[in-house]
Amino acid sequence: MPLIVQKFGGTSVANTTRIKEIIPLIKFEKDLGNDVIIVVSAMAGVTNQLITLCNEVSSLLTQEQLAEYDAALSSGEMVTASLVSLKLQEENIMARSVFSWQLPLITNYDHTKALVESFSVDLLTKCLKLGIIPVIAGFQGITPDNKLTTLGRGGSDTTATLVAARMKADRCDIYTDVEGVFTADPRIVHQAKKLTVISFEEMLEFASSGAKVLNARSIEVASRYNVPLRVLSSFTQDNGTLIISKDKIMENRIITGITSNKNLLKVSIENAQLSFSNICSLVSDNNIHVELMLNMDDNKKCSFITHLADKNRLEILLNNLKSTNNIADYIIDTKIAIISLIGYGIKNDYGLIKIILTHLEKENITVNMVQISEIKVSLLIRDNNTEKAIHSLHDLFELDK
Amino acid sequence: MPLIVQKFGGTSVANTTRIKEIIPLIKFEKDLGNDVIIVVSAMAGVTNQLITLCNEVSSLLTQEQLAEYDAALSSGEMVTASLVSLKLQEENIMARSVFSWQLPLITNYDHTKALVESFSVDLLTKCLKLGIIPVIAGFQGITPDNKLTTLGRGGSDTTATLVAARMKADRCDIYTDVEGVFTADPRIVHQAKKLTVISFEEMLEFASSGAKVLNARSIEVASRYNVPLRVLSSFTQDNGTLIISKDKIMENRIITGITSNKNLLKVSIENAQLSFSNICSLVSDNNIHVELMLNMDDNKKCSFITHLADKNRLEILLNNLKSTNNIADYIIDTKIAIISLIGYGIKNDYGLIKIILTHLEKENITVNMVQISEIKVSLLIRDNNTEKAIHSLHDLFELDK
Repeated sequence: MPLIVQKFGGTSVANTTRIKEIIPLIKFEKDLGNDVIIVVSAMAGVTNQLITLCNEVSSLLTQEQLAEYDAALSSGEMVTASLVSLKLQEENIMARSVFSWQLPLITNYDHTKALVESFSVDLLTKCLKLGIIPVIAGFQGITPDNKLTTLGRGGSDTTATLVAARMKADRCDIYTDVEGVFTADPRIVHQAKKLTVISFEEMLEFASSGAKVLNARSIEVASRYNVPLRVLSSFTQDNGTLIISKDKIMENRIITGITSNKNLLKVSIENAQLSFSNICSLVSDNNIHVELMLNMDDNKKCSFITHLADKNRLEILLNNLKSTNNIADYIIDTKIAIISLIGYGIKNDYGLIKIILTHLEKENITVNMVQISEIKVSLLIRDNNTEKAIHSLHDLFELDK
Repeated sequence: MPLIVQKFGGTSVANTTRIKEIIPLIKFEKDLGNDVIIVVSAMAGVTNQLITLCNEVSSLLTQEQLAEYDAALSSGEMVTASLVSLKLQEENIMARSVFSWQLPLITNYDHTKALVESFSVDLLTKCLKLGIIPVIAGFQGITPDNKLTTLGRGGSDTTATLVAARMKADRCDIYTDVEGVFTADPRIVHQAKKLTVISFEEMLEFASSGAKVLNARSIEVASRYNVPLRVLSSFTQDNGTLIISKDKIMENRIITGITSNKNLLKVSIENAQLSFSNICSLVSDNNIHVELMLNMDDNKKCSFITHLADKNRLEILLNNLKSTNNIADYIIDTKIAIISLIGYGIKNDYGLIKIILTHLEKENITVNMVQISEIKVSLLIRDNNTEKAIHSLHDLFELDK
């Protein structure tokens, strides 16, 4: 019997009315003769509430504190798994909630962003054999010594794809609040087109360049185990976007889509006494996630791009280095954005960069940096040019066609 | 080293400010050189929110549904156990949350009111040896096949007393929002006096006659294992009420206190075709908790007193019996109350009933029924006389002295 894993995100289970609305989506797959496994997130907003509570009582610095943080947070998915099971039972569909300690799903000890090490599918196989739909609380695992962990934001997607991979599912459907993956953010470009199919590799670049529709880790998992993923909305009838291996996609476009990320900042460091590699090490020791680091002027100057979320930690570090005369000064620039064009055609089209840059120049958009990989071109621009640049590039490559 | 179990109820952990306020209470016991184990309830209101959510998606009739209900509800205590651990760690006191599946604490399969069958204290002993305070999520257990259960309302008190019993604790402190056990409800009788000490047996009668300060089950457990219990407020400095074995109490009063219960109803059934025992069986099959059943007029009439909470179920049953002509008619009277006088002197004082009834007659309070046990006298009256009767009996026995 074919097996479909259905994952419902926070907005799809935001309240009991929404929970009622996902039941037909589950029934639909059952009625097609499929086995179904459900993975759920916490109700929208609940995880943030729990984070606020934890922050109110703790500085959350030590491993023990992060362990308690994980235990508190994992309660959110427990509640939705139980509520969805209850609603399915109410509709005479056999179902039960499944928690990480029941499987068990074992992770490493890296609280708040734990990596899955192993898990048993015995309970899932047993449920399916008995005709019971397992409703798994996503986002969580346990350490080998039996403490709860969480898999980081978007962790329920990771749970869903891992379960799909281990159970050799025929497809993993990720239900969310958008209709699929678009050629550009439809809130910016109204003519943006929904993609019916995209490759894992392109999707991975979309995710890591600012498209929030799926987290990168779950795409990696799906890609490694070759599980077809589908992103779709639980609020519309649309088929969503299918994410599959690139050799199954008949025709590859030059450019598949455009994403942008404004949640970035650029730091420029002046007259560093420390070597470039020392600064790199310090930055990474402080858990600051760097997108790009540039060594300029023979170790005397350096510049790097990092996430806005790391700003506080970064300032503490830099002020410290400044007060101890390890660096002369620094400038933080938050008015930047990175635009990324993604597509399989990029690596074969040597003229592409010229076309892009000439076009943007005509539009009076200054590009401060270009980064080219196999299937992605990234452009550093001023953030107030973001919408204009996306529109203009969307038109240039006729992505609405 | 002496061991104290401290249990904090929903109002004591209602928000993060309250959670901060319980830390000195825990520190105080540690500073006295005691080992401490904490048991927590869900934040005030959280359990009711979760119940509402479950009711919105389910009729909660089958065992499978009740299992999911239990899983959803047990998330509440998880969150507080984590938050209290976090706050303790923040104050440099080593602590960790402990969940039922980690102990494990095994119950039977009777969801929503499961009975504890066994539990291991290895994890608790290990924590104490390492100087770590275990913060146990109360109210919950797991079945032998690894599903979450809950122990019923007030179940965290049961968890606390069971842990205290198994760990041979020197005392179990139940922190709540009242200062202790009073001779009468202080909201009704302003002169009501707080009792400094009371016996398990009297406390059991208090609890089962409407005093909500402690649940009956936890008193039974404490009594059976002879663990001194203390009820006190986490908001005041008062020492609360100590609940101990009666042979340790020097002087026994005739009447220790008065309680009342208005959450009752009386059903009178007319011309039943069914026998009294048939009706009794039907009522109990429908999970209706009866306080008293009376067979009158040779099986033709019967009357029973049950809890207001069972009204809906009762009406469904009785309408069904009426439509099938098994009974001719019924009357439900919700305007009743039971007043209970509790004390060790009762069984030896044969003149007591006369004194009580004569006194109430003088006050124009009609008593419709009297029930006398070893240490309790219960009186059925009209509910609008409740406050007057309590005041008047409190004065009669000079309980404010």
